[in-house]
Amino acid sequence: MDIKDYMQDLGEKARKASRLMAKADSNAKDKALLTIADILEQRKAELIAANKLDLEAGADLEAAMLDRLELNDARIASMAEGLRQVAALADPIGEVSDMKYRPSGIQLGKMRVPLGVIGIIYESRPNVTADAAALALKSGNATILRGGSESIHSNQAIAICVKEGLQKVGLPEDAVQVIETTDRAAVGELLAMNEFVDVIIPRGGKGLIERISKEATMPVIKHLDGICHVYIDEQADLTKAINIAINSKTHRYGVCNAMETLLVAEAVAEKILSQLAPKYIEKGVELRGCAATKAILSDIVEATEEDWQTEYLAPILSIKVVKNVDEAIDHINHYSSQHTESIVTENYTTGRQFLREVDSSSVMINASTRFADGFEYGLGAEIGISTDKFHARGPVGLEGLTSQKYIVLGDGQIRE
Amino acid sequence: MDIKDYMQDLGEKARKASRLMAKADSNAKDKALLTIADILEQRKAELIAANKLDLEAGADLEAAMLDRLELNDARIASMAEGLRQVAALADPIGEVSDMKYRPSGIQLGKMRVPLGVIGIIYESRPNVTADAAALALKSGNATILRGGSESIHSNQAIAICVKEGLQKVGLPEDAVQVIETTDRAAVGELLAMNEFVDVIIPRGGKGLIERISKEATMPVIKHLDGICHVYIDEQADLTKAINIAINSKTHRYGVCNAMETLLVAEAVAEKILSQLAPKYIEKGVELRGCAATKAILSDIVEATEEDWQTEYLAPILSIKVVKNVDEAIDHINHYSSQHTESIVTENYTTGRQFLREVDSSSVMINASTRFADGFEYGLGAEIGISTDKFHARGPVGLEGLTSQKYIVLGDGQIRE
Repeated sequence: MDIKDYMQDLGEKARKASRLMAKADSNAKDKALLTIADILEQRKAELIAANKLDLEAGADLEAAMLDRLELNDARIASMAEGLRQVAALADPIGEVSDMKYRPSGIQLGKMRVPLGVIGIIYESRPNVTADAAALALKSGNATILRGGSESIHSNQAIAICVKEGLQKVGLPEDAVQVIETTDRAAVGELLAMNEFVDVIIPRGGKGLIERISKEATMPVIKHLDGICHVYIDEQADLTKAINIAINSKTHRYGVCNAMETLLVAEAVAEKILSQLAPKYIEKGVELRGCAATKAILSDIVEATEEDWQTEYLAPILSIKVVKNVDEAIDHINHYSSQHTESIVTENYTTGRQFLREVDSSSVMINASTRFADGFEYGLGAEIGISTDKFHARGPVGLEGLTSQKYIVLGDGQIRE
Repeated sequence: MDIKDYMQDLGEKARKASRLMAKADSNAKDKALLTIADILEQRKAELIAANKLDLEAGADLEAAMLDRLELNDARIASMAEGLRQVAALADPIGEVSDMKYRPSGIQLGKMRVPLGVIGIIYESRPNVTADAAALALKSGNATILRGGSESIHSNQAIAICVKEGLQKVGLPEDAVQVIETTDRAAVGELLAMNEFVDVIIPRGGKGLIERISKEATMPVIKHLDGICHVYIDEQADLTKAINIAINSKTHRYGVCNAMETLLVAEAVAEKILSQLAPKYIEKGVELRGCAATKAILSDIVEATEEDWQTEYLAPILSIKVVKNVDEAIDHINHYSSQHTESIVTENYTTGRQFLREVDSSSVMINASTRFADGFEYGLGAEIGISTDKFHARGPVGLEGLTSQKYIVLGDGQIRE
């Protein structure tokens, strides 16, 4: 079968399975998730053997990538645990909200429904296969998964467990399909099949996401970069400011909700920066500052225009002294990737202004940017963090994989 | 200025205005709407004079189109009234929902925010200029409007009133911009400017909408066709069934929420159809039926495969006899354009099944499909009816022009 026929066949099967999944009851979906979790644990040896093939084939990959690729006992246990957590979440499908009577006598409400078929394109980490399948399944969608070619054996081994679990509880095994070829043309076909695929979710580097957004003929839930800011206001509590600035940058470096630029009000810049700098330096963070910052911390590098636009994902921090909250907001709305920004202030009015005017998916007062995350937000699990404004914004959990339809209950009403 | 520079300039101005609109308070927005309404009424003579230029230039257009194009006293009054109604709606922006404490101590909620810049492309009816501007303005967005070339003078005249109203209350006049050229290249430029335009809403025929969806580099809220169904179940109340079937088809023919195909359960087909047919024929509706329908109503045309796929927008109705609700749902989920479907039944379980399994933007029990409309749903006004599942589905009012951001209120919390 050529690649086009293969993908069309996958698409048709997914669309068909999606109809069955949309009406599957909560119990069947949860049973499937728990069964898959058990199967993954029972097949530990097979999963590790399949993973070994990937690790051997990827022997020249860099160490960080190999680490992400590896499956071991602990990671399989955590994959299974993830499925059990998704099973424990409330079923979003069929939820009816806002029921009210209209003057015509009809009763109007909204019912939550699945999107249909979700295509997910991701890199290296094989656990995404189980995570993504779980979220799609729980939200009543069918899914077509395309992992990286470096993890093809691991992904296929996980897929077998998922299909077996679905079958065992009487759900369509085509509800989760993993593309079996590493041929790059498969991605092109997937992105062209808007009659079968309702939304594409890319997970990976900026290059991957930009390419997919450009090529996809269906909507894309995308997560580009995370250039997050913390602004320390003139009326910040000093201890909170120090704690939040340190935690937002240094809790983890390679994550999208880490702070990349610190903004400090000029009235408190000297006091704050002279206390913060030694702490950053102690942790090995390289500081780059604007002219005003350098006037306080003379031995740091000067920040360039490029610094304000960079997601370092590394122990580097750019610092800018600003006049006040207005200048902070302007800087953020210009340079931010609209991911997460936090203000540290005790002033009620300043806090309210920041909350209202900053145009990012998460806007915080007196909290670390590191809280912008599906688990911390109680979504149970997340499929990604959307930096779009359309459809889903911020951490995307089950609800982001659903839509709503209007429902009308009448007693024979007609329009006059 | 060439067309590209002209459009880029428009886009930059819109983006800038959108920042100011996002933080405009409710009072300023409402005052602008009321002021614009007054100005439109005061400038009646000028609007009618501008409209006359369009009517003269369009002398060879067909009568229906000329009628849609015409502005007169009553239509200007209704345009002004529409603006006043939008002013009276609650401001969606800044609405905070779902505030709750998380185990970490942070308090998490969602705040409703504007989308940013909305591009609206529409045909003939000049009142859309005022309607669309009003909805965009109230929802805190900036908008770029592109009307049909046949209504260019009318649209420009309305735009002058809108800008004057914005200016009078101190809002940026660039919040509403009407493209001043009829050059088709302007549309191409608009659809390419995804750095300035966040969403495109096309209003018009299927051809226009398909072309725009294909070309747009930003999300599109689109309304394709309305192939709506009524299914009369075996356990339908006869009177409700007759009323709803007649009203859904004959209340108005050229509207997207009119029924195009009637499905009838075989157990009641003879009784229902023999009563319905004379009523339809009396109203001049042409009937086309499946073989089973023709066995009851022998003198009607046989429906072809094409009929099930057609939005007639005319006094034509296709009729199909189905075995039961399962076959009705299968037919609908196959042929419907996912706009609006209604079941007539007194059976609790059948009604619940239809509500859950029919995959359309509005699903009804015992009510006319004609209720699927922004005003009937209490949205106050509608910018269109979305047949997409992504972002906005069904009648799109103010909320469809907004997004939500997460807000986090903390007391200095950091991630451990």
